Amino acid sequence: MRDAFHEELDAVFGDLASICGLVETAVSQATKALLEGDIDIAEQVISSDEQIDRAREAVEDQAFALLSLQQPVAGDLRVVVAALRMVTELERMGDLSVHVAKIARLRVPNVAVPGEIAPTMVKMAETAEDMVSRVQKIIVQRDVSAAIELGRDDEIMDQLRRASFTQLLGDDWEHGVEAAVDVALLGRYYERIADHAVSIANRVVFVVTGENPRSLDS
Amino acid sequence: MRDAFHEELDAVFGDLASICGLVETAVSQATKALLEGDIDIAEQVISSDEQIDRAREAVEDQAFALLSLQQPVAGDLRVVVAALRMVTELERMGDLSVHVAKIARLRVPNVAVPGEIAPTMVKMAETAEDMVSRVQKIIVQRDVSAAIELGRDDEIMDQLRRASFTQLLGDDWEHGVEAAVDVALLGRYYERIADHAVSIANRVVFVVTGENPRSLDS
Repeated sequence: MRDAFHEELDAVFGDLASICGLVETAVSQATKALLEGDIDIAEQVISSDEQIDRAREAVEDQAFALLSLQQPVAGDLRVVVAALRMVTELERMGDLSVHVAKIARLRVPNVAVPGEIAPTMVKMAETAEDMVSRVQKIIVQRDVSAAIELGRDDEIMDQLRRASFTQLLGDDWEHGVEAAVDVALLGRYYERIADHAVSIANRVVFVVTGENPRSLDS
Repeated sequence: MRDAFHEELDAVFGDLASICGLVETAVSQATKALLEGDIDIAEQVISSDEQIDRAREAVEDQAFALLSLQQPVAGDLRVVVAALRMVTELERMGDLSVHVAKIARLRVPNVAVPGEIAPTMVKMAETAEDMVSRVQKIIVQRDVSAAIELGRDDEIMDQLRRASFTQLLGDDWEHGVEAAVDVALLGRYYERIADHAVSIANRVVFVVTGENPRSLDS
């Protein structure tokens, strides 16, 4: 039987997983808005971000209550602080999805991503979404090996980012400065979403093992 | 006379202010490397980041010791967690300075910022550096009114960012895609440094007053 502290901690991690689900929807919908130039979906991503913000506040209140009432020390204390950091990162991933949606909205009725570079951008978006989806399962199952694997896959995002720059800066680029700037910033946003996913996965490793993976990005 | 908890907390805030000083140097030197195309300075910013990372770890250890040994509750607990968040943001500002330095290094022996847009970029860099410098004083003096004022000045950075986009995307832009992408990403990095400065200033308001300013970006 688990004690009160660990039961309440489980509830916090359950809520983190739920917020991660909201973030996954935000990333996926922002990408849809971007690739289809759909202003309604873009607006929905932007307005739904408040839900993530409110859920973040609720988790923070829970975590502070846990710290105040249960007075955890040592490892337990660090786990609660890790949860506080994870929720901050999840909120930030929501903000980054809003940035993607805002670029989509800015270019409607056009599509911000030119057809030629769309395959690379789609892969970046899919990689980010996949990492968010996997990190949700990692939180729920406290799956250390899946978390370490996620850290390794971050290299895929780096490769895609480099590939996008090669296309943008090549002599063949015919879509002008505006599209290039959009693509560079979108790449940055997806890359940061992936970075946060890796960071959250690393925090799960810490929560389970008490050790930071070497690659921990605090 | 202050009790042991508040004395140790003062030490943590003293260390936060020192790290803020390291960040100010990083921002200032990265900008110098950028505007002068100086690879030695760029390399120095990149290698000095480890110092900020180590200082961050030391503050985290201090803060955890404080939480474990003193078991603060309510407001005191939230202040220590605020300090943990502040140090994470300071480290991130160091990382963003490294990003600026890396763009500088990538373009050596050229200068990444074309002369025409240099004045706007210089203003962004100066605004960021000024905000970091002010936030250091805000941490040292727990100056709530200066912190609130800093939040208002964030609008200056937004205006500069918009001005840079107007230049980049105007018909007069003659510097091609590479320079435009560099300028867009550099603008993003300086903007994020400013965002973190505002966020840290808001946390100081919380530490002193127990209330979050309305604009708190968590």
